[in-house]
Amino acid sequence: MFENKDNAATSIGSLGEFGLIDHLTKNFKITQKSTVKGIGDDAAVIACDSAQQLVVTTDLLLEGVHFDLSYMPLKHLGYKAVIVNLSDVYAMNATPTQITVSIAASNRFPVEALEELYAGITTAAGIYNIDVVGGDTTSSTKGLLISITAIGTAPKEDVTYRSEAKDTDLLVVTGDLGAAYMGLQVLEREKEVFKVNPNSQPDLEPYSYLVERQLKPEARKDIPELLKSLEVKPTSMIDISDGLSSEILHICKNSEVGCNIYEDKIPLDPQVISTCEEFNLDSTTIALSGGEDYELLFTIKMDDYPKIKGNPHLSVIGHITNKKEGVHLISRAGAKIPLIARGWNALNEEG
Amino acid sequence: MFENKDNAATSIGSLGEFGLIDHLTKNFKITQKSTVKGIGDDAAVIACDSAQQLVVTTDLLLEGVHFDLSYMPLKHLGYKAVIVNLSDVYAMNATPTQITVSIAASNRFPVEALEELYAGITTAAGIYNIDVVGGDTTSSTKGLLISITAIGTAPKEDVTYRSEAKDTDLLVVTGDLGAAYMGLQVLEREKEVFKVNPNSQPDLEPYSYLVERQLKPEARKDIPELLKSLEVKPTSMIDISDGLSSEILHICKNSEVGCNIYEDKIPLDPQVISTCEEFNLDSTTIALSGGEDYELLFTIKMDDYPKIKGNPHLSVIGHITNKKEGVHLISRAGAKIPLIARGWNALNEEG
Repeated sequence: MFENKDNAATSIGSLGEFGLIDHLTKNFKITQKSTVKGIGDDAAVIACDSAQQLVVTTDLLLEGVHFDLSYMPLKHLGYKAVIVNLSDVYAMNATPTQITVSIAASNRFPVEALEELYAGITTAAGIYNIDVVGGDTTSSTKGLLISITAIGTAPKEDVTYRSEAKDTDLLVVTGDLGAAYMGLQVLEREKEVFKVNPNSQPDLEPYSYLVERQLKPEARKDIPELLKSLEVKPTSMIDISDGLSSEILHICKNSEVGCNIYEDKIPLDPQVISTCEEFNLDSTTIALSGGEDYELLFTIKMDDYPKIKGNPHLSVIGHITNKKEGVHLISRAGAKIPLIARGWNALNEEG
Repeated sequence: MFENKDNAATSIGSLGEFGLIDHLTKNFKITQKSTVKGIGDDAAVIACDSAQQLVVTTDLLLEGVHFDLSYMPLKHLGYKAVIVNLSDVYAMNATPTQITVSIAASNRFPVEALEELYAGITTAAGIYNIDVVGGDTTSSTKGLLISITAIGTAPKEDVTYRSEAKDTDLLVVTGDLGAAYMGLQVLEREKEVFKVNPNSQPDLEPYSYLVERQLKPEARKDIPELLKSLEVKPTSMIDISDGLSSEILHICKNSEVGCNIYEDKIPLDPQVISTCEEFNLDSTTIALSGGEDYELLFTIKMDDYPKIKGNPHLSVIGHITNKKEGVHLISRAGAKIPLIARGWNALNEEG
C-alpha cells in the first residue's frame, strides 16, 4: 500500500493535529499571484479581479466507496483526488488557481501513509499550477476520506454552463471513452486472482493504457486553451465523470434540447475494444456508462465546425435537436435507441 | 435522533444520487448578488470585485470524532457545521457569502434524517445570509460526515490576520468562555445515566445555557460590524474553536510576540462557575482549554481602548509583550504561569 515500505511507522496522534498539518503542508509552495495568504490562518485570502468570475467546486472521496487501496497507491489517490476537482473547473472553461484539502484517516494509517497521499497532491498541484491554500486534517473511526474544494477563474464572457446548448449545435467529446472503467475491471480481476494465489505475478502490459486511465487520470487542462486558440466558445460544456450518457442527459435537461449521437462516432482506444471483447462486454455500453474518463463534452455552433475539423483531440459525436425529438443513440445498424442514464452511481445499496 | 419520528423511512439509494441532491437542495435560495450560479453545474460561479478580497475556509466533521448523535439532533448538527465555518470567516474580519456542503451517510440514515440535517443547514444559511452554492452527496461505509467550505469577502484593508499583533496591544475576547465544554460534560453525564436507566428524565434546566452553547452555538456575526461602527481595526484576530490558550499561542507564534493574560479578567458565565464546582473542575482551566466557544479573540492598539471600554460584548483579558517575555497567565494570587496549549484535540489516540 505504501511506496516506501522501509520507513518506520509513525502514528498520527504522535504529532498532534497542528504538528501533523505543519508536517504535511510544509512542501506546498505558493505560485499564484492571486493567493494573498495560504495555509496558516483562520482562512485563506485570495485577491479578486472584477473582470473575472470565480468558479468553486467540491468532491468527496471515501475509501470503500470511491477507491480501493488494495490496488490504488496512496500517491496516485492524492493525485486523482485533485484531478477530479480540476476537471470540474475546466468544464466551466475556467483555469483552476487554488484548492483546499481535508483529510480524515483512521489509526491504521501512519504519518508515512499520509505523506504519500500528500506527495500525490503536491505533484498534481505542481503540474496543474495551483496553490493548496487550506484544509483540515482529523482522525476518523474507519478508513480514509478526502474532501477537496477547487477554485478557478475565468473572464466573465468565457464561463460556460450546461444550459446553453441550442438546436443544431454539434456535440463534441475530447479524447476517448471507457478506458478508466475497463482499467477498473482489469484491476478488480487481478485482485480476485491475487486472493486465490498471492504469488501470481499479473501481466498488466496489454492493459497499460486502461490501468493508467483508472489510476492516474489527467484533467483536460489543454482544452480551454485549445478552444481559445481556435477562437471557439463552446455553447455548453460538462466533464465526463459519470459516463457519456449521463452527461449528455444533463446538458439536454439543463438546455431543454434533444440530441442524436452516433455509435460509430464514439472515440474508443484499441485497448478498450480488445479488452471489452475479452471481458465479453459491449464497448459502446462501456463508453456510454463507464465513467471516470474526465474528458470534456461540449457543444459548438455549426458554423464553428471548420475550426475544429480534423483536430486529433476532438470528436464530433452528434448534434443537438429540438427538445421534443428526445435523446437518442443512432446505432451502427441505423436503429434509434433512447439514451438512459446508467452512469456510475456511488449511491447504491452497498455498505 | 430524528425530530419527526412519524415519517416513514426512505432509503438514500431509492432516490439515486442526482435525485437525492435535487431533493435535499430544493429549499436553498440565492440571496447574495455575487452568486452568479449556485447548485446545478460543474461548479458554482461567483462574481468578483477588485476592491474586495476573498477568504476561504473549510472544516470536516465526523460522527464518533466531532459529534455524537445520541444527544446531538441532526438539525442542530447541520446548523453547527455551518457555524463552525462562518466563525473562521468572521475571524478574518470578513462577511461570509457562500458555502458548499458535502455529506456522506451510511444506509443507517434514511432520506428523512438527511432532510433534518439540511433543515439545520438551511436555517443557518437564512440567519447568516449566505448561499449554499454547491456540494457533494454520497454514501459512506460507516457513519455520517459533513465537509463544509465557506467563502467570504472583505475590503482588502479590513482583512485581519493572526500575525500582526504588536507589543503593548491589548488582548480582547468576546462573550464568555468554557460553556460549550461544560455543556458537553453535562450531556455526556446524562448519556451515562440514560444507559443505566433509560426511564430517567434528565433535568437540564440548571444547565440550559451550557447545553445551548454546545448544541446550538452561534458565530459572532455582530463583532466585525461592531468593530467597524466603533472604528476599531483589530491588529490580529482568531476564533476560539480549540480553547483560549491554544488560540493565544497561535497569535503569539504567528505575530512573534509574548503575552500576559489575567485569570481574573477571563469572562465566565455563572452557570460555568457553578457547574465546574459541581463537577469538581477548575473553571480557569476549562475556559483556557475547553474549546468550541466560537468567540473571537483579537488584539487592538492601546489607543483604541477608550472606544471599546465598558462594551458588554468585549473583555480585555491581557496585553501583548515582547516575544522574549513568553506567554503567561497571571493567576488571581499573582503567580506567573507559562501558558501551554491543551485545547481540544481531535487527533488523539482513540478509534
